[in-house]
This record gives sequence, C-alpha cells and structure tokens, in this order.
Amino acid sequence: MSASVQQTSQRAREASRVLGRLDRRHKDRALAAVAEGLRESSAALSSANEADLARGRDNGMSRALLDRLRLTPQRVEALAAAVEEIIGLEDPVGRVVQGRTLPNGLRLSQVTVPLGVVGAIYEARPNVTVDIAALALKSGNAAILRGGSAAQSTNETLLSIIRQALATTSVPVDAVQSIDAFGREGATELMTTRGSVDVLIPRGGGELIQHVVQNARVPVIETGEGNVHIFLDATADPEQAREIVLNAKMSRPSVCNAAETLLIHSQAEQSGREVLRALHAAGVVLHVDPRADAWLPAERSANAEVTEVTAEHFATEFLDLELAVGVVDSLDEAIDHIRRHTTGHTEAIVTDSVAHAERFIAEVDAAAVVVNASTRFTDGGQFGLGAEVGISTQKMHARGPMGLGELTTTKWVVRGEGQIRD
Amino acid sequence: MSASVQQTSQRAREASRVLGRLDRRHKDRALAAVAEGLRESSAALSSANEADLARGRDNGMSRALLDRLRLTPQRVEALAAAVEEIIGLEDPVGRVVQGRTLPNGLRLSQVTVPLGVVGAIYEARPNVTVDIAALALKSGNAAILRGGSAAQSTNETLLSIIRQALATTSVPVDAVQSIDAFGREGATELMTTRGSVDVLIPRGGGELIQHVVQNARVPVIETGEGNVHIFLDATADPEQAREIVLNAKMSRPSVCNAAETLLIHSQAEQSGREVLRALHAAGVVLHVDPRADAWLPAERSANAEVTEVTAEHFATEFLDLELAVGVVDSLDEAIDHIRRHTTGHTEAIVTDSVAHAERFIAEVDAAAVVVNASTRFTDGGQFGLGAEVGISTQKMHARGPMGLGELTTTKWVVRGEGQIRD
Repeated sequence: MSASVQQTSQRAREASRVLGRLDRRHKDRALAAVAEGLRESSAALSSANEADLARGRDNGMSRALLDRLRLTPQRVEALAAAVEEIIGLEDPVGRVVQGRTLPNGLRLSQVTVPLGVVGAIYEARPNVTVDIAALALKSGNAAILRGGSAAQSTNETLLSIIRQALATTSVPVDAVQSIDAFGREGATELMTTRGSVDVLIPRGGGELIQHVVQNARVPVIETGEGNVHIFLDATADPEQAREIVLNAKMSRPSVCNAAETLLIHSQAEQSGREVLRALHAAGVVLHVDPRADAWLPAERSANAEVTEVTAEHFATEFLDLELAVGVVDSLDEAIDHIRRHTTGHTEAIVTDSVAHAERFIAEVDAAAVVVNASTRFTDGGQFGLGAEVGISTQKMHARGPMGLGELTTTKWVVRGEGQIRD
Repeated sequence: MSASVQQTSQRAREASRVLGRLDRRHKDRALAAVAEGLRESSAALSSANEADLARGRDNGMSRALLDRLRLTPQRVEALAAAVEEIIGLEDPVGRVVQGRTLPNGLRLSQVTVPLGVVGAIYEARPNVTVDIAALALKSGNAAILRGGSAAQSTNETLLSIIRQALATTSVPVDAVQSIDAFGREGATELMTTRGSVDVLIPRGGGELIQHVVQNARVPVIETGEGNVHIFLDATADPEQAREIVLNAKMSRPSVCNAAETLLIHSQAEQSGREVLRALHAAGVVLHVDPRADAWLPAERSANAEVTEVTAEHFATEFLDLELAVGVVDSLDEAIDHIRRHTTGHTEAIVTDSVAHAERFIAEVDAAAVVVNASTRFTDGGQFGLGAEVGISTQKMHARGPMGLGELTTTKWVVRGEGQIRD
C-alpha cells in the first residue's frame, strides 16, 4: 500500500475506534451538523458543481450522466433532509442479539458493534458521498470514499463541508475521508489491500460493481445488478399482468428493480397480447421471439422498434425503455431460463395457481421473489426498513435491501468470576 | 475451470436444488442412514485408515498428525454419534426472520434458505469429512470436499459410505462430492472460480486458512486462527488469575481458543509471580521480557525452558505448551499490544475494576471478549449453540462460534394481488 492510502486507512482505523464507542446522541449531533453545513454551503456547492458540469459538457458527457451529476439547491436541500432522516433512525450499535446465563454462571451476550472502516467506490453521483458518509457515521463506522473523477470538485467541496461540520462535534474529522486525490491507483490499492477497510461497497453500474467484485481482496458487499424477470403464467390475470409489467418496466427504467425480461406462457395468449400491445403502444423497444412477435399487432407503431430477440438481449440489463420477450411452454422452462440469466436480485411471477406460485418461490434463487406484484417494490424504503445502504445481490452477510444493521457485526461478551473449563 | 471440477460443481448445484427443498424429516432420515452406514463399515474404514497411517509413518509424519489421522472403531462410533446429534438439531431452513403486511396490502416475509453449495478445504482429519457433510445436509446445502492428501484412502471410503447411504434416501447422492481426485489444481480451481461454490470454509491450521483467504475469489468464511491474549490487570485476583491462565494455556494447548500471550500489569506483581511460577512448574515453555523474568524463581526447573521474548513470539500461535509473556504499565498499553497482535478470535482480561472491564470490552476488537474467565469457553458447544461449523474470525456474515444458521442466507418473499408502485 502506498504511504498515502495507508495513512488514510490508518487514520480511518483510529477515528473508527473513537466513533465506534460514541453513543447515539453524539452521532446524531454530528449528523445534524452535517445537514446544517450542507444547507449553509449551498452556494459554494453549486459553483463547485458548475465546474464539474462544464468539464462534463466539454468531455461530451451524456445528458443522463450530467443530470446525475447536477446538484441544484433543491437537491442540496434533499441531501440535508436525507441526513436528517437518518438522525431519526434507531442506533444499530449496541443491540443485544442474544444472551443467556450458562449453567456455570457465565453471563453471555452477543452485541452489535460497528464493522470498523467502510469503503465506498462509486460513480459521478455526489449524493452517494453524503449518503454513505451519513450511514457510516450513524452505524459508528469510519468511511473512506472514492467517487467518480467527473464529480471531483463537487465531492471535494462536500468532503470539506462534512469534515468542517465534524470538527465542531465529538466525531473525529477523519471519520470521513476521501482518496480521490490518489487517483485510480489509490482505488486499486484500497480494493486490494487486506485490512485497509472492513467492507467495501461498490455503488453504481454493473461494470463498476463487477470490476470491484473481481479485483477486490477485501470483503465486498455486491449491490444492485438486476437482470429482473417477470413470468406471466398460463393462469395470469390479463389486467393484472398488464399493470404489473408496465409498472415494472416503465415507472423508472434506470433502476435495478426494473424488469428487463418478460417470459410469457404459450397458453397465456390473451395476457401476452394485451401486455405486448400496451408496451409497444407506450414506446418500449421490444426484442421478441417469433411466437411473441405473432401476438403483436400487424401494424407497428413507428415510435417503438421491434426486433428479434437474441441470447445477448436475454443477458442484458437495459436500464432503459427496452425489454427482451420470450414465450415458454411451461413453468419449468421459465424457471430454467431465469436460472441461466438471473443476477439474484428480484424475480416475479404473475399466476393464479397456488402450486406454481409456491414452486416459483422455492425454486428461483434471488434476493426477492414476487408473486402478483411489481418488481419495483424491492427497496428498503418500500419494505419499511428505513434508510437503504444498497440492495445486496450476494448471499453472504446481507441479501436484498440492506439497512443500517448490515453495517454492523457482533461481538460475544463473556463475563465471569473465575470460571475455567473442565 | 477444468471439465472435472466444473462437472462436480454443476452436479452439486443440481443436487442442492433438490436437497434445498426437502423438509426436515427427509434430511434427518438421510443423516440417520449416514450414521448407520458409518457403524456398519467400521472395519472397512479401519483398513483404509491403516493404509493412510502406514503411508504417513513411511513419510515420517509426526506422532501428533498421525493421531489426528487415526480412525479407531471408537472414533468411528463417535463420528456416527455426532451425526445423530445433528439429527436432533432444529432445521435452520424455513425460519421466518421477519415479516409484515405493508400499507398497500403486500405480504412480506424474510425466510431462511440454504446458501446452496458449500465447499470445504481441510487437512488430514477424516472427522471433518463427516462433520461438514452432515452439517451441510442438515442445512440443505450440497457439499464439495477437499481433504488432505494424507487421508486420501480414509476419505475415499468415507465418501463412498456417505454416498451409498444417501442413495437409499430422498437426498441426491451428488449432495456430497469430493474433488480429491483432481489434486491440488482442482482445489485451486474450486477456490478461484466464482460461482463454483456459494461459500468456502477452510478448516485447519493458520497456513491453510491464510492460503485460502489470500487466494480465493469465492466467498470464504475464515475460521479458527487464534493468537489469544490474557491481560492480568493491576487489580486481578491472584488465585483467579492463576486458575484462568493455567486453564487457558494447558487444558488443550492445540486448539484455537487456548491462550498464546500473557500480558501482566506491572502493579500485578503478586498475580504475576504466582501465575509464572505455576506455569513454569507445570512445564510450560515461557518467553518472557526482563521484568517478567525477575518474577520467576531464581532456581529454574530443568523441565521447562525460559527464554527472552521476541517480537516473533508475540506474533506466534504456538498451539503447544509455550507462552509469550510481557509486562505492561497500563490498560492502554495492554490494549495497544492486543490491537497489534490480535487475530480477532478471543481476548481476555482478569480485573476487579468495572471501568477497566468495560473499556476492555469496548476497545478490543475480537469475536469474543472475556472478563474473569478462561478463553477456552469460546466454542459453539460451550455457548449452547449446538453443532459448530467453526469459529469465524471475520466480521462479515458470521463472527465467533458458528452454528447451522450461518450456513443459510435469506430470501424476501413478496405476495400480492396486482400491486404496482406509485
């Protein structure tokens, strides 16, 4: 590890030792100071952000990416409000998970404690800087941040606001640090040096996440890739099917719980026809197999392309108004297809058969399986879990929407008066 | 991945899909068949084991390793009994962790499900073969085993007994497979190919565990390394201190929860003298700093060496009747020392100060912190958790003694009647 990243990591470790022992009041006061700092520095943030936006435009950044990068006064207010919402959440630290007095009189308890140092590697979305910093603080963890270089000026200003706010509180300033100054190499070091962080959370598109997962030598929580399927079974209610598919594809196509593939039972012709017509009419680009093609109206709208579906379409997370469509002859065929293509995020069935619903629930291996509802519900807020750290698509430690609790581990505490083992 | 390991992994995945859906009765029947098979094949096991032992003796294997490798009829009986004990444990699968009905009517539940395929890489200890296979079966996971080559004949026979037993039950035979035939390369492939197993558990000495942790590209649960410290505070009760240290060092020196370093407060001279004398008299090799040396009797026993302690001693897990000893001037110095050398397993303090006990509990970062008791209690059985998969020294997913529950993950199940998101 280079001196720079090593020093950052060392300072984070030391800060985490102080922060990890602070009670909720002190952490909440620090969060309040951060929220206040953000509001007070709205103008400074806007001008730093303007510099990033100008650079982005010069570099030909897409409109969508520029929009994600943009920090308007309203968005700064929303960031501050989000921090204040975290103040309202329960402290995930110090919860006694289980405990008992053993026959030999030992008092045993398993207590939640912070993980220690949380690393985050993410793209040019300034909100993630505040988001991760606030979630880490509340859960007693120090944070080391690495944001996308396109948001460098904005992130620098955000970091300085957060650290200035912390300087007025009992939380050590080094509880939130950035390694942006150490460039790509710094990020690689953080990822590959065991002991630098206790957990690394990549936030962003599939490519970023896969890069981190493939290269990290430190523990990672894999989040967010969603090649989400909906299967319309033979007994699907046509109206329900149409509403669910349109909602899952169209309500917010750019997010991980949006549907990317629609599988239709060959006996669900009425549902199939209704759903495909509605999608086509709504302007969704469809990649269809020949049987699905036959269910589309002969006269096609000029607004929305229809092409023959390929193997690659079925493997693609479009994150756009685009959908792969296949017709299958059985539940087994649908489950097989999903098994081959799932990213383990969310998979849904629309059916009126109890037996099929239960088989789908049992046999599909994903963080969330949904029966007769939109896939868009897989979300910490929707599930009522409070602030969301991300949606884990891995099986270890956390699966599905992750709350603050997933940024903790446990410690066994054993209290005795001289007990020894036989 | 070579065809061989890939096929094994594919068969395991398919077996896990059937096994994962079996209810407890079917899994318990399979475990009963395995226990019966072990008892019936005691003679065959002895002769296979005799071949491994002969090879071991020819290769100059140490007495201790030969003993671990040995499978006497009594030990086979103990293995069968251990399998039967697992039958008595609750099924960790299908537990509803949490659930609620959301305001929109969606019924949400988070249910435990098997991880899928569990891999184990271990040394020449045939009991681990049966142990991991039985724990995996009970938790609905398929197992892929890689044992030490010195136990090859024994493991081959064990595998064939287990698989023959499964053939008479509803559990697919491929729920338990070995990759021993694919040698070292096979083990490396298993470790490095993402998707081959859902979790890899290394079981054995520090070197094996570190090799797996450093090289694995699949999720690992790190177990068992214990550079365990005991700190005798200024207010330690001398008699308690002596009993605890002797028990922690001597009751079973070869295990991970045995003490390896003793730190003594400079004001705990009486405790220090008593403990050191007792250890020396009992034949424990002591590596001491000059101040501790002065507390040992001037006349030294010929039975137990006393040398000056080095930095390396403080970093060593002796797993033998050998102990590093340092004198410190404060609780802070003790905590600093432990932070530098801990493997995160178990750390203990002997003290009569509430303030010091609480600081030690809060500031020492380990799976278990113990106040006024032996470190030997960190153990699933002692903690009352039932069968132990291992003792995790990592922070993610599991920390400390792991039961069957740690071989599961969760799945969110969402049931609706057409709900869509606003």
